[in-house]
Amino acid sequence: MPIIEPSDEHRKFMALAYAEAKTGYDEGGLPIGAVMVEDGAVVGAGHNRRVQEGDPIAHGEMDCLRRAGRRRHYKNVTLYTTLSPCMMCSGAIIQFGIPRVVVGEDENFAGDIGFLSGRGVEVALLQDPDCIALMGRFIREHPEIWNEDIAESD
Amino acid sequence: MPIIEPSDEHRKFMALAYAEAKTGYDEGGLPIGAVMVEDGAVVGAGHNRRVQEGDPIAHGEMDCLRRAGRRRHYKNVTLYTTLSPCMMCSGAIIQFGIPRVVVGEDENFAGDIGFLSGRGVEVALLQDPDCIALMGRFIREHPEIWNEDIAESD
Repeated sequence: MPIIEPSDEHRKFMALAYAEAKTGYDEGGLPIGAVMVEDGAVVGAGHNRRVQEGDPIAHGEMDCLRRAGRRRHYKNVTLYTTLSPCMMCSGAIIQFGIPRVVVGEDENFAGDIGFLSGRGVEVALLQDPDCIALMGRFIREHPEIWNEDIAESD
Repeated sequence: MPIIEPSDEHRKFMALAYAEAKTGYDEGGLPIGAVMVEDGAVVGAGHNRRVQEGDPIAHGEMDCLRRAGRRRHYKNVTLYTTLSPCMMCSGAIIQFGIPRVVVGEDENFAGDIGFLSGRGVEVALLQDPDCIALMGRFIREHPEIWNEDIAESD
């Protein structure tokens, strides 16, 4: 996946996703955040809450989708996420018909960007240094929680 | 996908998933239920709560995963669901490493059984008449909510 030079819009909304991730970190949780943008406005924001709520499906993207509430469609939506989406989150993106995803980084977790692209989702990868540093810090501090989050414990 | 003749265990646990679906229907929600079974015991149960909680990610399988809580792994788990899993739920099944899924029916929604099988998940399809009837009834009564649930509104 080629890394793109972020536009001003990319920087603005990824900073909001990062702020969600940082909130999660400060709560003692996994620092992964997401925001949903439609027509230039944020319509949803969330972060991973596995630790905070004991909820294994509350990945950053899923929490954002939940908090955005019920919608008839996602045709004009762009989802910003600090970390490359896992297969659950990728499946949600495809099922809901989200056409564009901006990914903060895929160094700490590769995710399934090829799967998303193959299903017609337009993916932009930023390799944002702040996203990489915060996630990397959590993985070093709490490897067991990270492994649990991606079901790779043992 | 070949339809299998249900075993006593299949009947027992699918009846519990159906009971979850029926609870959802009685609440005014989408009648899709799921139970998670490990070593012959139910370790989680849930049903779709899009309408009840305004939560678009609370499909039956996802609600079941959420209510089962945090786990280190899903290696010995079988997930029973009344309706063929959508791509979001299939993604969650694969991400969490759930090895076996028993599907009540795929007549009202085809889902992605081939995708699950292709990723190594063992899938059994029952075509259970009660599951088919309840879901079919809801789709006839509330087609707009069903279309919203699978993001096919337009």
